[in-house]
Amino acid sequence: MIVSALLTSVGINTALCVLFFTLYSVLRKQPSNYEVYSPRLLAEGTSKRRSRFNLERLIPSPGWVAKAWRLSEEELLSLSGLDGVVFMRMITFSLKIFTFAGIVGILVLLPVNCWGNQLKDIDVADFANNSLDVFTISNVNSGSHWLWVHFSAVYIVTGFICILLFYEYKYISSRRISYFYSSEPQPHHFTILVLSIPRSSSGSISDNVESFFKELYPSTYLSNVVIHRTRKIRSLVNEAKKLYKRVTQLRSDPTQQKNEHGGLLRNFGRKNSIEHYEKKLEDIEENVRLKQSEASLAEARAAFVFFKSRFGAATAFHMQQSVNPTQWITEFAPEPRDVYWPFFSESFMRRWISKLVIVVVCTLYTITFLIPVVIVQGLTNLSQLEILFPFLTSILSIKFVSQIVTGYLPSLILQLFLKLVPPVMEFLSSIQGYISHSDIEKSACNKVLWFTIWNVFFATLFSGSILSMLSVILDPKGLPGKLAVAVPAQASFFITYVVTSGWTSVSSELFLIIPFIINLITRPFTSSDDKVEVPSFPYHRDIPRVLFLGLLGITYFFLAPLILPFLLIYFCLAYIIYRNQFINVYAPRYETAGKFWPVVHNSMIFSLVLMHIIAVGIFAAKKLSLASTLIIPLPVLTLLFNEYCRKRFLPIFVAYSAESLIKKDREDENDTTIAEFHDNLVNAYKDPSLLPIRHSSNTEGLRSPLISQA
Amino acid sequence: MIVSALLTSVGINTALCVLFFTLYSVLRKQPSNYEVYSPRLLAEGTSKRRSRFNLERLIPSPGWVAKAWRLSEEELLSLSGLDGVVFMRMITFSLKIFTFAGIVGILVLLPVNCWGNQLKDIDVADFANNSLDVFTISNVNSGSHWLWVHFSAVYIVTGFICILLFYEYKYISSRRISYFYSSEPQPHHFTILVLSIPRSSSGSISDNVESFFKELYPSTYLSNVVIHRTRKIRSLVNEAKKLYKRVTQLRSDPTQQKNEHGGLLRNFGRKNSIEHYEKKLEDIEENVRLKQSEASLAEARAAFVFFKSRFGAATAFHMQQSVNPTQWITEFAPEPRDVYWPFFSESFMRRWISKLVIVVVCTLYTITFLIPVVIVQGLTNLSQLEILFPFLTSILSIKFVSQIVTGYLPSLILQLFLKLVPPVMEFLSSIQGYISHSDIEKSACNKVLWFTIWNVFFATLFSGSILSMLSVILDPKGLPGKLAVAVPAQASFFITYVVTSGWTSVSSELFLIIPFIINLITRPFTSSDDKVEVPSFPYHRDIPRVLFLGLLGITYFFLAPLILPFLLIYFCLAYIIYRNQFINVYAPRYETAGKFWPVVHNSMIFSLVLMHIIAVGIFAAKKLSLASTLIIPLPVLTLLFNEYCRKRFLPIFVAYSAESLIKKDREDENDTTIAEFHDNLVNAYKDPSLLPIRHSSNTEGLRSPLISQA
Repeated sequence: MIVSALLTSVGINTALCVLFFTLYSVLRKQPSNYEVYSPRLLAEGTSKRRSRFNLERLIPSPGWVAKAWRLSEEELLSLSGLDGVVFMRMITFSLKIFTFAGIVGILVLLPVNCWGNQLKDIDVADFANNSLDVFTISNVNSGSHWLWVHFSAVYIVTGFICILLFYEYKYISSRRISYFYSSEPQPHHFTILVLSIPRSSSGSISDNVESFFKELYPSTYLSNVVIHRTRKIRSLVNEAKKLYKRVTQLRSDPTQQKNEHGGLLRNFGRKNSIEHYEKKLEDIEENVRLKQSEASLAEARAAFVFFKSRFGAATAFHMQQSVNPTQWITEFAPEPRDVYWPFFSESFMRRWISKLVIVVVCTLYTITFLIPVVIVQGLTNLSQLEILFPFLTSILSIKFVSQIVTGYLPSLILQLFLKLVPPVMEFLSSIQGYISHSDIEKSACNKVLWFTIWNVFFATLFSGSILSMLSVILDPKGLPGKLAVAVPAQASFFITYVVTSGWTSVSSELFLIIPFIINLITRPFTSSDDKVEVPSFPYHRDIPRVLFLGLLGITYFFLAPLILPFLLIYFCLAYIIYRNQFINVYAPRYETAGKFWPVVHNSMIFSLVLMHIIAVGIFAAKKLSLASTLIIPLPVLTLLFNEYCRKRFLPIFVAYSAESLIKKDREDENDTTIAEFHDNLVNAYKDPSLLPIRHSSNTEGLRSPLISQA
Repeated sequence: MIVSALLTSVGINTALCVLFFTLYSVLRKQPSNYEVYSPRLLAEGTSKRRSRFNLERLIPSPGWVAKAWRLSEEELLSLSGLDGVVFMRMITFSLKIFTFAGIVGILVLLPVNCWGNQLKDIDVADFANNSLDVFTISNVNSGSHWLWVHFSAVYIVTGFICILLFYEYKYISSRRISYFYSSEPQPHHFTILVLSIPRSSSGSISDNVESFFKELYPSTYLSNVVIHRTRKIRSLVNEAKKLYKRVTQLRSDPTQQKNEHGGLLRNFGRKNSIEHYEKKLEDIEENVRLKQSEASLAEARAAFVFFKSRFGAATAFHMQQSVNPTQWITEFAPEPRDVYWPFFSESFMRRWISKLVIVVVCTLYTITFLIPVVIVQGLTNLSQLEILFPFLTSILSIKFVSQIVTGYLPSLILQLFLKLVPPVMEFLSSIQGYISHSDIEKSACNKVLWFTIWNVFFATLFSGSILSMLSVILDPKGLPGKLAVAVPAQASFFITYVVTSGWTSVSSELFLIIPFIINLITRPFTSSDDKVEVPSFPYHRDIPRVLFLGLLGITYFFLAPLILPFLLIYFCLAYIIYRNQFINVYAPRYETAGKFWPVVHNSMIFSLVLMHIIAVGIFAAKKLSLASTLIIPLPVLTLLFNEYCRKRFLPIFVAYSAESLIKKDREDENDTTIAEFHDNLVNAYKDPSLLPIRHSSNTEGLRSPLISQA
């Protein structure tokens, strides 16, 4: 790629970012957009819909930037929980390492690369087409001693990242522990989920659980709640909700309200249809109530079991309960709001098989997704495009158009395809047998990350058939050599990728295009009394995105340091924008207390090892075999460091220690409200579809004024 | 290899076996050999040394075979514990699968192989030299539909083995649980070992442990015993033991006793030297006593912590104690007799690093051990031998000698080399940080197994340099193809290996050559009052040996079914001989309650998957690519089956379930002796080097009659 193409791409994206920022600065102040840009504030009641017009509303102001900048970590913690803090720490962590790598890369490596003249020997025409390569390691002469500078940079930056990773893991562990210490008594600390409960011939599941746990934990067992199969009721409840929405919409429809005194007939028809719907709603609710009270409500082989102390619950979780390890499987209960009710696979075999099936499906999806990516890769090649669509030749010969096509279009299309991936992966995770939203998102987060690495990184490097990619991966000996050829060749593509995908994604995150458009369309049909739905932060979409850009930065910093300034701009934008979104838009749906950090850590370690493998290949290709050999201890040391971190920190993210649990339990002993808390525990975990529903009575409440009106 | 060479080898080994059996049948009845052939009975006092001579003693009698045959599993359990039972189950398991595979192989596959005429096309001279290959799959025509018989055999035998593995795992799990239920209260069920105890500024380690565990487990904590650094005392105690032995030897030496009334001077000199040694012994013992009582006896950062109930100990084991997971690491305590006192690495980092170092050392040892093996491989090649040692040409031209050299010598030399491996691996495991003899042997067992698979199986297949072997392993795609060429080519070598290594090792196990020779030499110097040392069974030597022959059987059964009769003879011999040895020779040194079975299970699964990989290669090489493809689901299913077994059974071998622990604890509640048991717990775990030593007083006791005699 030539420099001007890159500049075009940068230009377009800068313009887009400025446009988004400006639009956001104006639109956020319009009351009609409050639901899009600050639903959180609206729901909390701190922001009121002001209908009074003033001029200030039309002038873009950067006040929100300053507000986001000033937000302290403690404030963020209270706003979005530890998960929000971990997300922001990931961005500041990336900022730190890429600032360091940027200083090394731009001040040391870039001059060395430019100094070389490997590429001067090549055909001049070809050189002009690849002018960006002058800034990459490809330009350093083979066997040159200047390559030792790159070698040292690899060692120094790896060391820096590892040290930072260690302290970051330590810091987040301590935050997690102190978060636990400062928390109020929470139901999920006192509860475990038991699965694969064996059916006894006599008595219900509940009696079975009661007798089993009373026998094992007589001093700490409190009670239990058996989970019921509620698929049918759930669908009825959903139907009732839809009907209720329709009825309220019909009632409050402003266009109809106006016509009220117009056509009596039309009004009568409307009333008729309202009555019809209400009748239907009542029928359904009667049905639901009947089904809920049915004695034959099928019990699932799973139950929430409550304990008198956190330590008691943890003991029951850690022990293997039954002689048969596939029965009475225990898990920590998720927070009540975090439970994923719809899919409660409770038997050991069903969970295991569904997990296996999903792993296979996920792998197939990841691998076969390549086909559209390969087509996208074809688009970057102008001449191929002209052959495929000859009628485009005239348009493509315009310099500006051709630059857009080569520099911008490919990654935009790729980006659109990738938009589909997080929801698909979330769906796959949800049927894998996880019992909480947080686990589903964490699993989806990993899936999306590997998906992105495979389908964007490897597919771009070895652009071609699936078989050629698999053959590269299945040949570990040849991997460094093949990477050494492929990785520098795609440097310009990934620099553009950072600009297009990174910058655009983060500024569209600010502008929230899709919710904005949806709001624009649906606004006439929603009443202002509707409850504002505050979205939760899509960790499974955004963590992989940030981590993938981190992977690009780490693998490319010594090959093509030019990528680093663009990355730094991305992370600065992300820093401000995500903080702003945490303040205004998202409210936490659950609290994992930092369980996303191990994902971040593992991804960083993978990036480092990948970078080392590439370095081995590059130094060998550059005929500096000593350097190539001396790199080999580095991945070994990195993996040992990772292993140490796994032993030192990972257990903290799995379960709380006996020491902390006892400490918290002792505090409770002096607490007078704990007895009441124990009594309420049973009510904490109620299947929402078993709660009594009261829509029809609500509509009745609504009806009376209508009737009096009529 | 030609048939006559195999027959020579079989002939020699049959003769050797008969010789060993006959010699054993005679020698075991000589009272002087009781210490070799029935030390266990001697120690138990059930067998007395009869000095009365009778003719029956000189006639070989097979009574011991009948006795070994009649031994029931319950008797074996009471004799050698569950570990002995597991070992014998491994042999009966092998007998079962190879009887089945033998029926399939000899009745179905062998005729199919002989029917083919692939090898008839080859040069006749070459055919004569490879006449054994007529019985292998190599003789089946390429692309022949008869290969589907082999294909079906692979599926059927895999299925049979997996079903049997499942029921065997289930049976041994149930034995383990019933063994636990029927056991008396045992100290190690009430005890955990705590490592990496942090040093507090105030107070000793013991106080620190006391306060920590009293805080966490107030209702179940009992007491603790801190481990001390006793390396110096241990060496002193050993020295004292040696001296004591010397003194008692000097006193009771019969050659000297006779001379007592002979030379007064010599007698005086003897007495002088005895006194000198006694003085020295007393000094050392004084020193030991001083060191033992020293207040400054260095405390290690490890302690045994005792609990009032099994459940309490298990809870403490399962929980992560401290906020920092690298401190207060808990392990189940081994049995008191099983503790490996000498090497108590107590800090997390030291254990981790020593483990890493040992893994590296072990891998290097395994890989570089190849060099002698390659030399041995050279010996099988007659022409190469004649080139290397021209003076041997005349001897090697004798047919009998050449047959011995090709058929027997190579595996004998290999066998001698391999004799060194188990002790080396046991040593390596002992410095790896394990705290019990059983863990050391289990780890050594795995090491020896992998060592054997790599150095005997793979090295024979790809006989050549280490690099060529590594390149084969590092190229997963090419592996089946290379195995398909190499494995059938070595069929005759491995058939001979079964005969020489298998038959010889098991009959020499019966005859116990080395202990017999040692006994023959040292007999004049040992008094009959010496305590008989009963050896413990070397699981880490014999389990890998049996498993490796199982691997050969599984991988070769469909390639060269001729191996199966020889294997069956081996397992029949092993069945009788090991039972006999469990009755007469070995006494258990520890009881892992069946923890060796997972090793056996894993090895069988590995053998199956290896067999499948070979089958994929063979069918591809035989131009039956459909069969080659259809084999691929088989390893996947086998690995899934293994994964299921890991989830279903493995946890039972790691720790006992809460259900079983509570059941046992409840039983104790009615037991009146349990309080006394609790009081004695502290004394159960005493470092033997800290026990008071009383050698010198013993010698004094010995001295008085001597003085009165003088």
